[in-house]
Amino acid sequence: MLFLLLSLRRFVRIILNDVMKTKFIHTYVSVDCVVFGFDNNQFSILLVQLDKERIGNKNLKLPGGLIYDHEDVDMAALRILYELTGIKRMNLRQFRCFSSPDRASHPDDIRWMDRAYQPNIDRLITVSYLSLCKIDKKLKNISGFKSTQWCKLNELPVMPFDHNQIVEASFLEIRRWVEHDLAVMFDLLPHKFTFSQFHALYEAVYNRKIDPRNFYKKVKNMAYVVQLDEKQPNVRHRAAHYYKFDKHIYKMVKNQFVILNS
Amino acid sequence: MLFLLLSLRRFVRIILNDVMKTKFIHTYVSVDCVVFGFDNNQFSILLVQLDKERIGNKNLKLPGGLIYDHEDVDMAALRILYELTGIKRMNLRQFRCFSSPDRASHPDDIRWMDRAYQPNIDRLITVSYLSLCKIDKKLKNISGFKSTQWCKLNELPVMPFDHNQIVEASFLEIRRWVEHDLAVMFDLLPHKFTFSQFHALYEAVYNRKIDPRNFYKKVKNMAYVVQLDEKQPNVRHRAAHYYKFDKHIYKMVKNQFVILNS
Repeated sequence: MLFLLLSLRRFVRIILNDVMKTKFIHTYVSVDCVVFGFDNNQFSILLVQLDKERIGNKNLKLPGGLIYDHEDVDMAALRILYELTGIKRMNLRQFRCFSSPDRASHPDDIRWMDRAYQPNIDRLITVSYLSLCKIDKKLKNISGFKSTQWCKLNELPVMPFDHNQIVEASFLEIRRWVEHDLAVMFDLLPHKFTFSQFHALYEAVYNRKIDPRNFYKKVKNMAYVVQLDEKQPNVRHRAAHYYKFDKHIYKMVKNQFVILNS
Repeated sequence: MLFLLLSLRRFVRIILNDVMKTKFIHTYVSVDCVVFGFDNNQFSILLVQLDKERIGNKNLKLPGGLIYDHEDVDMAALRILYELTGIKRMNLRQFRCFSSPDRASHPDDIRWMDRAYQPNIDRLITVSYLSLCKIDKKLKNISGFKSTQWCKLNELPVMPFDHNQIVEASFLEIRRWVEHDLAVMFDLLPHKFTFSQFHALYEAVYNRKIDPRNFYKKVKNMAYVVQLDEKQPNVRHRAAHYYKFDKHIYKMVKNQFVILNS
Protein backbone atom coordinates (compact mmCIF):
# COMPACT_ATOMS: atom_id res chain seq x y z
CA MET A 1 0.00 0.00 0.00
CA LEU A 2 2.75 2.40 1.04
CA PHE A 3 4.65 1.42 -2.06
CA LEU A 4 1.61 2.19 -4.19
CA LEU A 5 1.19 5.60 -2.56
CA LEU A 6 4.85 6.42 -3.03
CA SER A 7 4.69 5.34 -6.67
CA LEU A 8 1.60 7.45 -7.18
CA ARG A 9 3.29 10.44 -5.54
CA ARG A 10 6.32 9.99 -7.77
CA PHE A 11 4.11 9.65 -10.82
CA VAL A 12 2.20 12.83 -9.95
CA ARG A 13 5.45 14.69 -9.41
CA ILE A 14 6.80 13.59 -12.79
CA ILE A 15 3.61 14.70 -14.51
CA LEU A 16 3.67 18.02 -12.62
CA ASN A 17 7.31 18.61 -13.46
CA ASP A 18 6.52 17.94 -17.07
CA VAL A 19 3.67 20.43 -17.07
CA MET A 20 5.82 22.99 -15.28
CA LYS A 21 8.63 22.50 -17.76
CA THR A 22 6.50 23.39 -20.74
CA LYS A 23 5.16 26.42 -18.89
CA PHE A 24 8.50 28.17 -18.59
CA ILE A 25 9.21 30.31 -21.56
CA HIS A 26 11.99 29.16 -23.85
CA THR A 27 12.30 31.75 -26.50
CA TYR A 28 14.29 33.53 -29.14
CA VAL A 29 15.35 37.08 -28.48
CA SER A 30 15.62 39.84 -31.03
CA VAL A 31 16.34 43.55 -31.00
CA ASP A 32 14.45 46.19 -32.97
CA CYS A 33 15.68 49.72 -33.51
CA VAL A 34 13.60 52.85 -33.99
CA VAL A 35 15.89 55.41 -35.59
CA PHE A 36 14.34 58.88 -35.71
CA GLY A 37 15.49 61.56 -38.11
CA PHE A 38 14.05 65.07 -38.40
CA ASP A 39 13.72 66.82 -41.75
CA ASN A 40 11.38 69.40 -43.25
CA ASN A 41 9.87 69.98 -39.83
CA GLN A 42 8.76 66.40 -39.34
CA PHE A 43 9.99 63.10 -37.98
CA SER A 44 11.03 60.24 -40.20
CA ILE A 45 11.86 56.70 -39.21
CA LEU A 46 14.40 54.36 -40.77
CA LEU A 47 12.79 51.20 -42.16
CA VAL A 48 14.06 48.09 -43.91
CA GLN A 49 12.66 47.11 -47.29
CA LEU A 50 11.85 43.44 -47.49
CA ASP A 51 11.15 43.25 -51.24
CA LYS A 52 11.29 39.55 -52.16
CA GLU A 53 11.08 38.65 -48.50
CA ARG A 54 7.75 40.40 -47.98
CA ILE A 55 5.77 39.50 -44.88
CA GLY A 56 2.30 38.90 -46.28
CA ASN A 57 1.75 42.13 -48.21
CA LYS A 58 3.94 44.15 -45.87
CA ASN A 59 7.17 45.40 -47.35
CA LEU A 60 8.65 47.53 -44.54
CA LYS A 61 9.73 46.72 -41.01
CA LEU A 62 11.94 48.12 -38.29
CA PRO A 63 15.64 47.32 -38.54
CA GLY A 64 16.21 44.38 -36.24
CA GLY A 65 17.04 40.72 -35.94
CA LEU A 66 17.83 37.81 -33.67
CA ILE A 67 20.75 38.16 -31.33
CA TYR A 68 23.69 35.77 -31.45
CA ASP A 69 24.91 33.52 -28.68
CA HIS A 70 28.03 35.56 -27.98
CA GLU A 71 26.21 38.91 -27.91
CA ASP A 72 24.22 40.83 -25.36
CA VAL A 73 21.31 42.90 -26.64
CA ASP A 74 23.27 46.17 -26.79
CA MET A 75 25.93 44.57 -29.00
CA ALA A 76 23.28 43.07 -31.26
CA ALA A 77 21.54 46.43 -31.75
CA LEU A 78 24.80 48.15 -32.68
CA ARG A 79 25.75 45.31 -35.05
CA ILE A 80 22.41 45.31 -36.84
CA LEU A 81 22.36 49.07 -37.32
CA TYR A 82 25.93 48.97 -38.58
CA GLU A 83 25.09 46.20 -41.07
CA LEU A 84 22.16 48.23 -42.37
CA THR A 85 23.49 51.77 -42.30
CA GLY A 86 27.26 51.65 -42.15
CA ILE A 87 27.22 53.88 -39.06
CA LYS A 88 29.39 52.48 -36.31
CA ARG A 89 28.54 54.56 -33.30
CA MET A 90 24.93 55.46 -32.88
CA ASN A 91 23.59 57.04 -29.72
CA LEU A 92 21.30 54.09 -29.01
CA ARG A 93 19.07 53.77 -26.02
CA GLN A 94 17.41 50.57 -24.89
CA PHE A 95 13.88 51.45 -23.94
CA ARG A 96 11.58 48.46 -23.56
CA CYS A 97 11.18 44.73 -23.88
CA PHE A 98 8.10 43.75 -25.91
CA SER A 99 7.08 40.24 -24.95
CA SER A 100 3.37 39.71 -25.55
CA PRO A 101 2.86 35.96 -26.17
CA ASP A 102 1.10 36.64 -29.49
CA ARG A 103 3.38 39.34 -30.87
CA ALA A 104 4.85 37.02 -33.50
CA SER A 105 1.97 34.64 -34.02
CA HIS A 106 0.42 35.95 -37.24
CA PRO A 107 0.76 33.21 -39.91
CA ASP A 108 2.60 35.67 -42.21
CA ASP A 109 5.04 36.51 -39.43
CA ILE A 110 5.63 32.83 -38.67
CA ARG A 111 6.23 31.94 -42.34
CA TRP A 112 8.72 34.78 -42.64
CA MET A 113 10.61 33.72 -39.50
CA ASP A 114 10.77 30.16 -40.88
CA ARG A 115 12.44 31.46 -44.04
CA ALA A 116 14.60 34.20 -42.56
CA TYR A 117 15.91 32.33 -39.55
CA GLN A 118 14.81 28.76 -39.04
CA PRO A 119 11.58 26.81 -38.61
CA ASN A 120 9.84 26.40 -35.29
CA ILE A 121 10.68 29.66 -33.62
CA ASP A 122 8.17 29.02 -30.89
CA ARG A 123 8.20 32.45 -29.39
CA LEU A 124 10.04 35.68 -30.02
CA ILE A 125 10.50 38.52 -27.61
CA THR A 126 12.22 41.72 -28.62
CA VAL A 127 14.20 44.43 -26.88
CA SER A 128 13.64 47.77 -28.55
CA TYR A 129 16.13 50.58 -29.03
CA LEU A 130 15.70 54.23 -29.79
CA SER A 131 18.11 56.44 -31.67
CA LEU A 132 17.99 60.08 -32.71
CA CYS A 133 19.93 60.84 -35.82
CA LYS A 134 21.25 64.12 -37.21
CA ILE A 135 19.67 65.15 -40.49
CA ASP A 136 22.36 66.89 -42.46
CA LYS A 137 24.96 64.20 -43.01
CA LYS A 138 23.80 60.87 -41.76
CA LEU A 139 20.31 61.12 -43.19
CA LYS A 140 21.64 61.21 -46.73
CA ASN A 141 24.21 58.51 -46.19
CA ILE A 142 21.71 56.18 -44.64
CA SER A 143 19.01 56.60 -47.22
CA GLY A 144 21.51 55.64 -49.93
CA PHE A 145 22.44 52.48 -48.07
CA LYS A 146 21.29 49.05 -49.14
CA SER A 147 17.68 48.25 -48.51
CA THR A 148 16.76 50.95 -46.03
CA GLN A 149 14.55 53.97 -46.51
CA TRP A 150 13.25 56.87 -44.46
CA CYS A 151 9.54 56.98 -43.92
CA LYS A 152 7.60 59.92 -42.49
CA LEU A 153 6.22 59.20 -39.04
CA ASN A 154 2.70 60.23 -40.04
CA GLU A 155 2.81 58.12 -43.20
CA LEU A 156 3.99 54.85 -41.67
CA PRO A 157 2.60 51.72 -43.33
CA VAL A 158 1.16 48.79 -41.41
CA MET A 159 4.20 46.76 -40.39
CA PRO A 160 4.63 43.12 -39.35
CA PHE A 161 4.82 41.91 -35.73
CA ASP A 162 4.12 44.71 -33.24
CA HIS A 163 6.38 47.20 -35.00
CA ASN A 164 3.73 49.93 -35.24
CA GLN A 165 3.17 49.64 -31.53
CA ILE A 166 6.91 49.83 -30.87
CA VAL A 167 7.17 53.05 -32.89
CA GLU A 168 4.27 54.55 -30.97
CA ALA A 169 5.90 53.73 -27.62
CA SER A 170 9.27 55.03 -28.79
CA PHE A 171 7.74 58.38 -29.73
CA LEU A 172 6.57 58.83 -26.13
CA GLU A 173 9.99 57.71 -24.97
CA ILE A 174 11.64 60.56 -26.88
CA ARG A 175 9.87 63.04 -24.59
CA ARG A 176 11.13 61.27 -21.50
CA TRP A 177 14.61 61.23 -22.96
CA VAL A 178 14.52 64.91 -23.89
CA GLU A 179 13.16 65.86 -20.48
CA HIS A 180 15.96 64.00 -18.81
CA ASP A 181 18.68 65.24 -21.10
CA LEU A 182 17.83 68.08 -23.44
CA ALA A 183 21.15 67.60 -25.25
CA VAL A 184 19.75 64.65 -27.24
CA MET A 185 17.37 67.10 -28.95
CA PHE A 186 20.34 68.56 -30.78
CA ASP A 187 21.20 65.14 -32.19
CA LEU A 188 18.21 65.71 -34.45
CA LEU A 189 19.19 69.17 -35.70
CA PRO A 190 21.95 70.14 -38.13
CA HIS A 191 25.07 71.60 -36.52
CA LYS A 192 23.86 75.05 -37.54
CA PHE A 193 20.11 75.45 -37.22
CA THR A 194 17.60 78.28 -37.39
CA PHE A 195 15.16 79.28 -34.70
CA SER A 196 12.26 77.99 -36.74
CA GLN A 197 13.88 74.56 -37.15
CA PHE A 198 14.35 74.36 -33.39
CA HIS A 199 10.78 75.49 -32.82
CA ALA A 200 9.42 72.94 -35.29
CA LEU A 201 11.36 70.18 -33.54
CA TYR A 202 9.82 71.12 -30.19
CA GLU A 203 6.38 71.09 -31.76
CA ALA A 204 7.09 67.68 -33.26
CA VAL A 205 8.38 66.19 -30.00
CA TYR A 206 5.37 67.44 -28.03
CA ASN A 207 3.01 66.89 -30.95
CA ARG A 208 1.25 70.24 -30.50
CA LYS A 209 1.46 73.91 -31.41
CA ILE A 210 3.81 75.99 -29.26
CA ASP A 211 3.58 79.79 -29.29
CA PRO A 212 6.72 80.98 -31.12
CA ARG A 213 7.12 84.17 -29.08
CA ASN A 214 7.10 82.34 -25.75
CA PHE A 215 9.40 79.76 -27.21
CA TYR A 216 11.76 82.50 -28.41
CA LYS A 217 12.00 83.88 -24.88
CA LYS A 218 12.77 80.39 -23.63
CA VAL A 219 15.51 79.89 -26.19
CA LYS A 220 17.05 83.26 -25.27
CA ASN A 221 17.37 81.91 -21.73
CA MET A 222 19.19 78.79 -22.89
CA ALA A 223 22.80 79.84 -22.48
CA TYR A 224 23.87 76.73 -24.40
CA VAL A 225 21.96 77.72 -27.56
CA VAL A 226 24.38 80.20 -29.05
CA GLN A 227 23.45 82.62 -31.82
CA LEU A 228 26.05 82.75 -34.61
CA ASP A 229 26.99 85.76 -36.71
CA GLU A 230 26.13 83.74 -39.77
CA LYS A 231 22.74 83.98 -41.47
CA GLN A 232 20.91 81.74 -43.90
CA PRO A 233 22.43 82.16 -47.37
CA ASN A 234 20.39 82.95 -50.48
CA VAL A 235 17.57 84.63 -48.60
CA ARG A 236 17.03 88.30 -49.52
CA HIS A 237 14.66 89.51 -46.86
CA ARG A 238 14.83 88.67 -43.19
CA ALA A 239 17.37 85.87 -43.54
CA ALA A 240 17.32 83.90 -40.29
CA HIS A 241 20.26 83.71 -37.94
CA TYR A 242 21.93 80.40 -37.34
CA TYR A 243 22.29 78.94 -33.86
CA LYS A 244 24.47 76.19 -32.52
CA PHE A 245 24.37 73.99 -29.46
CA ASP A 246 27.29 74.43 -27.06
CA LYS A 247 27.64 71.20 -25.10
CA HIS A 248 30.27 72.57 -22.70
CA ILE A 249 27.98 75.36 -21.53
CA TYR A 250 25.15 72.84 -21.38
CA LYS A 251 27.12 70.55 -19.09
CA MET A 252 28.02 73.41 -16.77
CA VAL A 253 24.42 74.63 -16.58
CA LYS A 254 23.10 71.13 -16.05
CA ASN A 255 25.51 70.28 -13.24
CA GLN A 256 24.71 73.52 -11.49
CA PHE A 257 20.96 73.12 -11.61
CA VAL A 258 20.43 69.42 -11.52
CA ILE A 259 18.68 69.55 -8.17
CA LEU A 260 16.83 72.77 -8.83
CA ASN A 261 15.40 71.44 -12.05
CA SER A 262 14.03 68.27 -10.64
CA MET B 1 31.61 18.03 -62.46
CA LEU B 2 28.56 20.29 -62.27
CA PHE B 3 26.89 17.71 -60.07
CA LEU B 4 29.90 17.68 -57.78
CA LEU B 5 29.90 21.47 -57.54
CA LEU B 6 26.18 21.54 -56.79
CA SER B 7 26.59 18.84 -54.15
CA LEU B 8 29.46 20.75 -52.62
CA ARG B 9 27.40 23.95 -52.60
CA ARG B 10 24.53 22.15 -50.94
CA PHE B 11 26.88 20.59 -48.41
CA VAL B 12 28.42 23.97 -47.57
CA ARG B 13 24.98 25.50 -47.20
CA ILE B 14 23.86 22.76 -44.81
CA ILE B 15 26.99 23.20 -42.72
CA LEU B 16 26.55 26.99 -42.75
CA ASN B 17 22.89 26.71 -41.80
CA ASP B 18 23.86 24.47 -38.96
CA VAL B 19 26.47 26.89 -37.71
CA MET B 20 24.03 29.76 -38.09
CA LYS B 21 21.35 27.91 -36.20
CA THR B 22 23.48 27.36 -33.17
CA LYS B 23 24.52 31.00 -33.26
CA PHE B 24 21.04 32.40 -32.72
CA ILE B 25 20.22 32.76 -29.11
CA HIS B 26 17.59 30.42 -27.73
CA THR B 27 17.14 31.34 -24.16
CA TYR B 28 15.07 31.45 -21.02
CA VAL B 29 13.72 34.77 -19.89
CA SER B 30 13.28 35.91 -16.31
CA VAL B 31 12.29 39.11 -14.57
CA ASP B 32 14.01 40.60 -11.52
CA CYS B 33 12.53 43.32 -9.35
CA VAL B 34 14.38 45.96 -7.39
CA VAL B 35 11.94 47.25 -4.78
CA PHE B 36 13.23 50.33 -2.96
CA GLY B 37 11.93 51.43 0.42
CA PHE B 38 13.11 54.44 2.41
CA ASP B 39 13.37 54.36 6.19
CA ASN B 40 15.56 56.05 8.82
CA ASN B 41 16.94 58.32 6.13
CA GLN B 42 18.31 55.52 3.97
CA PHE B 43 17.31 53.22 1.16
CA SER B 44 16.52 49.58 1.69
CA ILE B 45 15.93 46.89 -0.91
CA LEU B 46 13.61 43.93 -0.72
CA LEU B 47 15.48 40.62 -1.02
CA VAL B 48 14.48 36.97 -1.04
CA GLN B 49 16.02 34.57 1.48
CA LEU B 50 17.13 31.34 -0.13
CA ASP B 51 17.91 29.40 3.09
CA LYS B 52 18.08 25.71 2.09
CA GLU B 53 18.29 26.72 -1.55
CA ARG B 54 21.47 28.76 -1.08
CA ILE B 55 23.42 29.63 -4.19
CA GLY B 56 26.96 28.70 -3.19
CA ASN B 57 27.30 30.60 0.08
CA LYS B 58 24.91 33.34 -1.04
CA ASN B 59 21.61 33.47 0.79
CA LEU B 60 19.94 36.57 -0.64
CA LYS B 61 18.84 37.51 -4.15
CA LEU B 62 16.48 39.89 -5.88
CA PRO B 63 12.83 38.80 -6.12
CA GLY B 64 12.48 37.30 -9.58
CA GLY B 65 11.92 34.19 -11.64
CA LEU B 66 11.31 32.68 -15.05
CA ILE B 67 8.31 33.92 -17.00
CA TYR B 68 5.57 31.55 -18.11
CA ASP B 69 4.45 30.84 -21.65
CA HIS B 70 1.18 32.74 -21.34
CA GLU B 71 2.75 35.82 -19.72
CA ASP B 72 4.52 38.88 -20.96
CA VAL B 73 7.30 40.29 -18.78
CA ASP B 74 5.09 42.91 -17.09
CA MET B 75 2.61 40.25 -15.99
CA ALA B 76 5.41 38.04 -14.70
CA ALA B 77 6.91 40.85 -12.60
CA LEU B 78 3.55 41.66 -11.00
CA ARG B 79 2.86 37.97 -10.34
CA ILE B 80 6.24 37.35 -8.73
CA LEU B 81 5.99 40.38 -6.46
CA TYR B 82 2.48 39.39 -5.48
CA GLU B 83 3.59 35.86 -4.65
CA LEU B 84 6.38 37.21 -2.46
CA THR B 85 4.78 40.22 -0.82
CA GLY B 86 1.02 39.89 -1.09
CA ILE B 87 0.84 43.34 -2.69
CA LYS B 88 -1.27 43.29 -5.83
CA ARG B 89 -0.65 46.63 -7.43
CA MET B 90 2.85 47.92 -7.30
CA ASN B 91 4.01 50.92 -9.25
CA LEU B 92 6.50 48.88 -11.27
CA ARG B 93 8.69 50.22 -13.99
CA GLN B 94 10.55 48.11 -16.51
CA PHE B 95 14.01 49.57 -16.83
CA ARG B 96 16.52 47.36 -18.58
CA CYS B 97 17.20 43.97 -20.11
CA PHE B 98 20.38 42.38 -18.76
CA SER B 99 21.66 39.85 -21.26
CA SER B 100 25.39 39.40 -20.93
CA PRO B 101 26.22 35.87 -22.19
CA ASP B 102 27.98 34.99 -18.93
CA ARG B 103 25.53 36.52 -16.45
CA ALA B 104 24.30 33.09 -15.33
CA SER B 105 27.37 30.99 -15.97
CA HIS B 106 28.88 30.68 -12.48
CA PRO B 107 28.80 26.97 -11.50
CA ASP B 108 26.83 27.83 -8.32
CA ASP B 109 24.25 29.73 -10.39
CA ILE B 110 23.94 26.85 -12.87
CA ARG B 111 23.51 24.26 -10.12
CA TRP B 112 20.82 26.39 -8.52
CA MET B 113 18.94 26.84 -11.80
CA ASP B 114 19.07 23.06 -12.34
CA ARG B 115 17.38 22.53 -8.99
CA ALA B 116 14.98 25.46 -8.98
CA TYR B 117 13.77 25.20 -12.57
CA GLN B 118 15.12 22.42 -14.72
CA PRO B 119 18.48 21.19 -15.97
CA ASN B 120 20.18 22.56 -19.05
CA ILE B 121 19.07 26.17 -18.94
CA ASP B 122 21.57 27.14 -21.56
CA ARG B 123 21.22 30.86 -21.19
CA LEU B 124 19.15 33.20 -19.11
CA ILE B 125 18.43 36.82 -19.84
CA THR B 126 16.50 38.98 -17.44
CA VAL B 127 14.28 42.02 -17.70
CA SER B 128 14.61 44.17 -14.59
CA TYR B 129 11.93 46.21 -12.86
CA LEU B 130 12.10 49.05 -10.41
CA SER B 131 9.57 49.90 -7.74
CA LEU B 132 9.44 52.57 -5.07
CA CYS B 133 7.51 51.57 -2.00
CA LYS B 134 6.01 53.66 0.78
CA ILE B 135 7.58 53.08 4.18
CA ASP B 136 4.83 53.41 6.71
CA LYS B 137 2.46 50.60 5.88
CA LYS B 138 3.85 48.38 3.16
CA LEU B 139 7.31 48.15 4.63
CA LYS B 140 6.04 46.41 7.73
CA ASN B 141 3.67 44.13 5.86
CA ILE B 142 6.29 43.05 3.41
CA SER B 143 9.02 42.37 5.90
CA GLY B 144 6.68 40.01 7.75
CA PHE B 145 5.93 38.11 4.57
CA LYS B 146 7.32 34.69 3.85
CA SER B 147 10.97 34.58 2.98
CA THR B 148 11.64 38.22 2.16
CA GLN B 149 13.62 40.78 4.08
CA TRP B 150 14.64 44.40 3.70
CA CYS B 151 18.32 45.04 3.38
CA LYS B 152 20.01 48.44 3.62
CA LEU B 153 21.36 49.60 0.27
CA ASN B 154 24.82 50.28 1.71
CA GLU B 155 24.94 46.89 3.44
CA LEU B 156 23.98 44.70 0.49
CA PRO B 157 25.64 41.27 0.46
CA VAL B 158 27.25 39.76 -2.62
CA MET B 159 24.34 38.25 -4.58
CA PRO B 160 24.17 35.56 -7.27
CA PHE B 161 23.99 36.24 -11.02
CA ASP B 162 24.44 39.96 -11.80
CA HIS B 163 22.03 41.09 -9.11
CA ASN B 164 24.45 43.55 -7.52
CA GLN B 165 24.98 45.15 -10.90
CA ILE B 166 21.21 45.36 -11.45
CA VAL B 167 20.76 47.16 -8.12
CA GLU B 168 23.49 49.61 -9.03
CA ALA B 169 21.87 50.40 -12.36
CA SER B 170 18.44 50.73 -10.78
CA PHE B 171 19.74 53.28 -8.29
CA LEU B 172 20.78 55.51 -11.19
CA GLU B 173 17.43 54.85 -12.83
CA ILE B 174 15.62 56.28 -9.79
CA ARG B 175 17.14 59.67 -10.54
CA ARG B 176 15.95 59.56 -14.14
CA TRP B 177 12.53 58.56 -12.95
CA VAL B 178 12.35 61.33 -10.34
CA GLU B 179 13.59 63.89 -12.84
CA HIS B 180 10.90 62.87 -15.26
CA ASP B 181 8.12 62.64 -12.71
CA LEU B 182 8.81 64.02 -9.25
CA ALA B 183 5.58 62.48 -7.97
CA VAL B 184 7.22 59.06 -7.65
CA MET B 185 9.45 60.53 -4.92
CA PHE B 186 6.41 60.69 -2.65
CA ASP B 187 5.85 56.96 -3.11
CA LEU B 188 8.83 56.59 -0.80
CA LEU B 189 7.64 58.94 1.95
CA PRO B 190 4.87 58.39 4.49
CA HIS B 191 1.61 60.21 3.74
CA LYS B 192 2.60 62.82 6.34
CA PHE B 193 6.28 63.59 6.34
CA THR B 194 8.59 66.15 7.90
CA PHE B 195 10.89 68.52 6.07
CA SER B 196 13.91 66.60 7.30
CA GLN B 197 12.56 63.30 5.96
CA PHE B 198 12.03 64.91 2.56
CA HIS B 199 15.49 66.46 2.67
CA ALA B 200 17.08 63.13 3.62
CA LEU B 201 15.32 61.43 0.70
CA TYR B 202 16.71 64.00 -1.74
CA GLU B 203 20.18 63.48 -0.33
CA ALA B 204 19.75 59.72 -0.68
CA VAL B 205 18.52 59.92 -4.28
CA TYR B 206 21.37 62.17 -5.34
CA ASN B 207 23.81 60.46 -3.00
CA ARG B 208 25.33 63.72 -1.76
CA LYS B 209 24.88 66.47 0.84
CA ILE B 210 22.34 69.15 -0.07
CA ASP B 211 22.29 72.46 1.80
CA PRO B 212 19.10 72.37 3.92
CA ARG B 213 18.43 76.13 3.68
CA ASN B 214 18.52 76.14 -0.12
CA PHE B 215 16.44 73.02 -0.14
CA TYR B 216 13.93 74.64 2.22
CA LYS B 217 13.51 77.55 -0.22
CA LYS B 218 12.97 75.07 -3.01
CA VAL B 219 10.33 73.18 -1.06
CA LYS B 220 8.53 76.44 -0.27
CA ASN B 221 8.21 76.97 -4.01
CA MET B 222 6.66 73.53 -4.56
CA ALA B 223 2.95 74.39 -4.46
CA TYR B 224 2.18 70.67 -4.31
CA VAL B 225 4.08 70.14 -1.05
CA VAL B 226 1.50 71.39 1.42
CA GLN B 227 2.32 72.22 5.03
CA LEU B 228 -0.23 70.77 7.47
CA ASP B 229 -1.35 72.30 10.78
CA GLU B 230 -0.27 69.11 12.48
CA LYS B 231 3.12 68.77 14.14
CA GLN B 232 5.17 65.77 15.21
CA PRO B 233 3.69 64.36 18.41
CA ASN B 234 5.72 63.69 21.56
CA VAL B 235 8.39 66.25 20.78
CA ARG B 236 8.71 69.01 23.36
CA HIS B 237 10.90 71.56 21.67
CA ARG B 238 10.70 72.60 18.04
CA ALA B 239 8.37 69.80 16.95
CA ALA B 240 8.51 69.67 13.15
CA HIS B 241 5.54 70.44 10.95
CA TYR B 242 4.11 67.71 8.80
CA TYR B 243 3.78 68.10 5.05
CA LYS B 244 1.78 66.20 2.51
CA PHE B 245 1.98 65.77 -1.24
CA ASP B 246 -1.02 67.09 -3.19
CA LYS B 247 -1.15 65.22 -6.47
CA HIS B 248 -3.91 67.38 -7.95
CA ILE B 249 -1.87 70.56 -7.58
CA TYR B 250 1.14 68.64 -8.87
CA LYS B 251 -0.69 67.61 -12.04
CA MET B 252 -1.84 71.18 -12.69
CA VAL B 253 1.63 72.60 -12.18
CA LYS B 254 3.21 69.90 -14.32
CA ASN B 255 0.83 70.34 -17.24
CA GLN B 256 1.37 74.07 -17.16
CA PHE B 257 5.15 73.91 -17.18
CA VAL B 258 5.92 70.78 -19.07
CA ILE B 259 7.63 72.67 -21.87
CA LEU B 260 9.21 75.30 -19.65
CA ASN B 261 10.78 72.64 -17.47
CA SER B 262 12.32 70.72 -20.26
